[in-house]
Amino acid sequence: MRARDHGIVIGRVPPGAANAITDVAGVLVGHASPAPEQTGVTVVVPRADAWLEPAPAGTAVLNGAGELTGSLQIREWGCIETPIFLTGTPYVGAVYEAATRVLTERQPLIGVDDVIIPVVGECDPSAVVDVVGGARPDVALVAAALDGARSGTVAEGQVGAGIGMHCCDFAGGIGTASRLVGGYTVGVLLLVNFGDWEELRIGGRLAGVPAPTRGVDGSCIAVVATDAPLVASDLERLARRAFLGLARAGSYASHGSGEIAVAFTTANAALHARATEHPVVQIGVLRDPAALSALFAGCVEAAEEAVLNALLGARTLHGARGTAHAFPADRLSQ
Amino acid sequence: MRARDHGIVIGRVPPGAANAITDVAGVLVGHASPAPEQTGVTVVVPRADAWLEPAPAGTAVLNGAGELTGSLQIREWGCIETPIFLTGTPYVGAVYEAATRVLTERQPLIGVDDVIIPVVGECDPSAVVDVVGGARPDVALVAAALDGARSGTVAEGQVGAGIGMHCCDFAGGIGTASRLVGGYTVGVLLLVNFGDWEELRIGGRLAGVPAPTRGVDGSCIAVVATDAPLVASDLERLARRAFLGLARAGSYASHGSGEIAVAFTTANAALHARATEHPVVQIGVLRDPAALSALFAGCVEAAEEAVLNALLGARTLHGARGTAHAFPADRLSQ
Amino acid sequence: MRARDHGIVIGRVPPGAANAITDVAGVLVGHASPAPEQTGVTVVVPRADAWLEPAPAGTAVLNGAGELTGSLQIREWGCIETPIFLTGTPYVGAVYEAATRVLTERQPLIGVDDVIIPVVGECDPSAVVDVVGGARPDVALVAAALDGARSGTVAEGQVGAGIGMHCCDFAGGIGTASRLVGGYTVGVLLLVNFGDWEELRIGGRLAGVPAPTRGVDGSCIAVVATDAPLVASDLERLARRAFLGLARAGSYASHGSGEIAVAFTTANAALHARATEHPVVQIGVLRDPAALSALFAGCVEAAEEAVLNALLGARTLHGARGTAHAFPADRLSQ
Amino acid sequence: MRARDHGIVIGRVPPGAANAITDVAGVLVGHASPAPEQTGVTVVVPRADAWLEPAPAGTAVLNGAGELTGSLQIREWGCIETPIFLTGTPYVGAVYEAATRVLTERQPLIGVDDVIIPVVGECDPSAVVDVVGGARPDVALVAAALDGARSGTVAEGQVGAGIGMHCCDFAGGIGTASRLVGGYTVGVLLLVNFGDWEELRIGGRLAGVPAPTRGVDGSCIAVVATDAPLVASDLERLARRAFLGLARAGSYASHGSGEIAVAFTTANAALHARATEHPVVQIGVLRDPAALSALFAGCVEAAEEAVLNALLGARTLHGARGTAHAFPADRLSQ
Repeated sequence: MRARDHGIVIGRVPPGAANAITDVAGVLVGHASPAPEQTGVTVVVPRADAWLEPAPAGTAVLNGAGELTGSLQIREWGCIETPIFLTGTPYVGAVYEAATRVLTERQPLIGVDDVIIPVVGECDPSAVVDVVGGARPDVALVAAALDGARSGTVAEGQVGAGIGMHCCDFAGGIGTASRLVGGYTVGVLLLVNFGDWEELRIGGRLAGVPAPTRGVDGSCIAVVATDAPLVASDLERLARRAFLGLARAGSYASHGSGEIAVAFTTANAALHARATEHPVVQIGVLRDPAALSALFAGCVEAAEEAVLNALLGARTLHGARGTAHAFPADRLSQ
Repeated sequence: MRARDHGIVIGRVPPGAANAITDVAGVLVGHASPAPEQTGVTVVVPRADAWLEPAPAGTAVLNGAGELTGSLQIREWGCIETPIFLTGTPYVGAVYEAATRVLTERQPLIGVDDVIIPVVGECDPSAVVDVVGGARPDVALVAAALDGARSGTVAEGQVGAGIGMHCCDFAGGIGTASRLVGGYTVGVLLLVNFGDWEELRIGGRLAGVPAPTRGVDGSCIAVVATDAPLVASDLERLARRAFLGLARAGSYASHGSGEIAVAFTTANAALHARATEHPVVQIGVLRDPAALSALFAGCVEAAEEAVLNALLGARTLHGARGTAHAFPADRLSQ
Repeated sequence: MRARDHGIVIGRVPPGAANAITDVAGVLVGHASPAPEQTGVTVVVPRADAWLEPAPAGTAVLNGAGELTGSLQIREWGCIETPIFLTGTPYVGAVYEAATRVLTERQPLIGVDDVIIPVVGECDPSAVVDVVGGARPDVALVAAALDGARSGTVAEGQVGAGIGMHCCDFAGGIGTASRLVGGYTVGVLLLVNFGDWEELRIGGRLAGVPAPTRGVDGSCIAVVATDAPLVASDLERLARRAFLGLARAGSYASHGSGEIAVAFTTANAALHARATEHPVVQIGVLRDPAALSALFAGCVEAAEEAVLNALLGARTLHGARGTAHAFPADRLSQ
Repeated sequence: MRARDHGIVIGRVPPGAANAITDVAGVLVGHASPAPEQTGVTVVVPRADAWLEPAPAGTAVLNGAGELTGSLQIREWGCIETPIFLTGTPYVGAVYEAATRVLTERQPLIGVDDVIIPVVGECDPSAVVDVVGGARPDVALVAAALDGARSGTVAEGQVGAGIGMHCCDFAGGIGTASRLVGGYTVGVLLLVNFGDWEELRIGGRLAGVPAPTRGVDGSCIAVVATDAPLVASDLERLARRAFLGLARAGSYASHGSGEIAVAFTTANAALHARATEHPVVQIGVLRDPAALSALFAGCVEAAEEAVLNALLGARTLHGARGTAHAFPADRLSQ
């Protein structure tokens, strides 16, 4: 059951077919975890070989108490050249190393003519999962997440990187949603791990449902995808709008919370292509102010709805160090 | 009538005595305008002589389609050394020049041993006001705003810089609110000129009240004041939270909208004082994570409420180029 | 006499015909001042009507203890829509206001359908010029600078905005240079007001020539122009390289110095054009790594040489408050 | 043999006892590598337990085509809570994972009450070292680098992370230098891997010594340490000055080069301490403009000299994929 299955409609713009980031054609999502109670990996794949054809991209930071590796390079070059890997905070290194090895194995030019800096984001599941003694993501797990990446419906809640995460003191994790705006699609996938139950807003109203336990202090990684022909500076702007959706769902970006966003477009694939014969690349750039504003508004709506989808899609999870309790959906009718 | 007078309570944190930025002790607000239908100046005074004792400060930008002069210096030095002047976009130069002259006249050291870079922010009233042919702010007007600056209750809506501004297609302008958090006060004053009526949220719910006309595309300058002992980097963080409050009231930061914030503290006055005998200055810095988070949450609430106070405090204004229509408050009961 | 006239050749890349920012086709430079000893205005014009066809642009800050109005909008939209006005710090408001009025008068759509935020940069001449009592730039002066803007040779040193400025304790002011790289041109114009004589490097070597007096503490505004087809994020990168040239001439960016740069391209004029029928604009973007690196290296060289041209082009100026002494060029042979 | 041993003196400020980053009391440096021809790890330790007492810190980016993990958190919180690990680009994940495990093992609170985000920077040695098939850094290697960290003299050139690196087409790697300014010390340690021999400047003059082969396109990670009592925003400023020293040695920050800096202070250890009873922490902050400017100038000098120490300290290294040739020091006399 997702937010719309409960009759909760966020905003005024229609969603795409799957109401997911995968509504942006070509974008795939995969999950893998060592065990159902052990935080794993969620991967968002911008295109088949992002290293050969990096996607124009931009990042934004609301509260940088977290990590998104590759941020500096995305900012400098205006593109992303790897899938986006999400995981638990203590596993960033393990996933980075595994991604380096898997991607190097699959693209023979890496490590010979050039290197790769994988993009890895995180939230902290240590209140629920044993992050010290438990199984750590490895090459096989990262490969499985990549190989399992699919278009269409996306599993939400306590899956992949979402295992052990909280949303406003209830179980959270992966959530996604999309919007169709002016012929383009914008999709958002979140790794939700922020908030207090007292601040949770459902459809703009304080939920007022006490949670049995406290989650950790924060964090939310947002991945925004679109097929609109944008360049890096506009993708930074789009990324920033995801935070406005979090705010509507109750985020105030607490001191320890890492609210970090990355946005990319599947359009203009030629712009950053490694193999090109022409020093000057021809592209189209969306400059219509109304179209840009509509994309921004759609991103805000999708981000807010993705939070609720993470909340309502998450099962109760009993981890080695604690429990993430599912939100009692029967309270929604009140 | 303000939001609370209509029974609208935003969030969970109590406001200060005036529910205004002036609840931060020492902070004054003044308004002046050439005529009731001509955009003037609103000034926020951090302390009596901010040039001699600059206030620790930071800025944030959600959408930089606007101007806040002095931003670069605030970012570099971590302090603000002038009052904050708000006005109409076409008057930034006039107010900057007038402020330079007034402040230089009042502080004999300026222009002799040192210079001053006034902080001037703006929104665009050109849909309502004749910004080409009409009266422009001058030295007398800026002096009047400074001399009229007061603590306590703040006039809202179509006053000072607020004249000619829209809030979600209705009349907007100046709005303010405050919160008391853990022994500290955080106050927000907004120059509101953003949004579409379709996006307006009152208490988190879409208002759904059509406006008779369209306002211009955007902008909102946020001034955040606190007495908590913070340094520049934390004030940047506080400033950023104001945008989350705008989002809850309906902002999605459209392409043409200038959402820019500046935050300062009245504490740690010695840190940037020009006249000091000691190369190393002793200060206290709030580092408690829970206290910082509470300040952030209070800022979000105050910003959301300040939008509604601007909306509900604004009269209908017939300008030389158009009309800003007051929000029909009788629709609130529905 | 410029640096090359003294046999000083900076770097390895050839300069353009005028060895000036005006070597970028279409770029004009104008100077005007109220009196030969009173700081005036220098204007760099990217194209005939930058408001109708804004130039792709980016900014960079090495030490933000200064002002470049319009910075936020350039950062957000990735373009510059006005000429770049340089002046003395206390005159930023006067020039901003005058520019607003002149540009509004010359482009009837401004103030009716839209507004303008002029780009004004500054350095502080208060050690030499009477900035309190002296003549202030006004509408006539700004119009004169614009109307006098020319291609070809650029007057350097104590002209326009350069009047009253220092370069490493000697007279400084306006300096310019250019480089031809891979079929493109990159030009730099500086308003030089930084440095200590002990740090001055000529051709990489400490000059070791004591100055008779101390200048003020710093600042240098850099304007970088190119005809290479870049987008905003790459123009930010190009702007940043200007600082490396300053460093080679002796800058360490002291606490009080405002090192701020803006770069624009005359290419891709359609990208930000206000009057367009197509929501998606077709452009070419230079992506060849070697070509980008060559542009960067050329910018560094041009910036270093522009410092020396400001130094060597400046006459001794006796102002109302002090004297800027010309560098003794006869010491160069040593 | 270091630069000064060859009679090359950079700048005017005296160095510390070891002319190394370790002149800042408490700062340790360690190197470890799997083999003399295989890139390893260099670690800079700010203090014994940086996780319990994070050091106030700031970062800066000249060209972000690289990686420094932890950058977002340093920017947000203004402190660094781990040692700084330097390595080869393809080993960032391996070192991050190893550091996570080693630091977690040594500090029992990590992973239980809180998590850690190690700071790992990189340059690309793939032109010399077999980064695909060769040995990768692991837990033992990272532990060895930490355990071997020492004060006093620092090994330079092709050691630790420096193995396989180039400096202007010659062998490069680790270089360090320090300056004593006004009672404080500022030290710089570089991982040097940038530049073209045509651009190399020694003592400000083009070296003009052709290299037998080409290095890779760039990168330089700079670590700046001081004992001056600064806060985060000033440490960002200090970090930025390192780039001015690189420029003087010949850097123009080519497109593919990752010039990234991090600065920290050993002072004000209480500011970010995890275990504190007081929500408001008392600190001293250096605000004297002249003292700050002197620190900046010292940092520029130390960075320039550290480049030359990396160049002159590096032996010829024959790697599995290529050779890094030592600079012919006998050419210096010319």
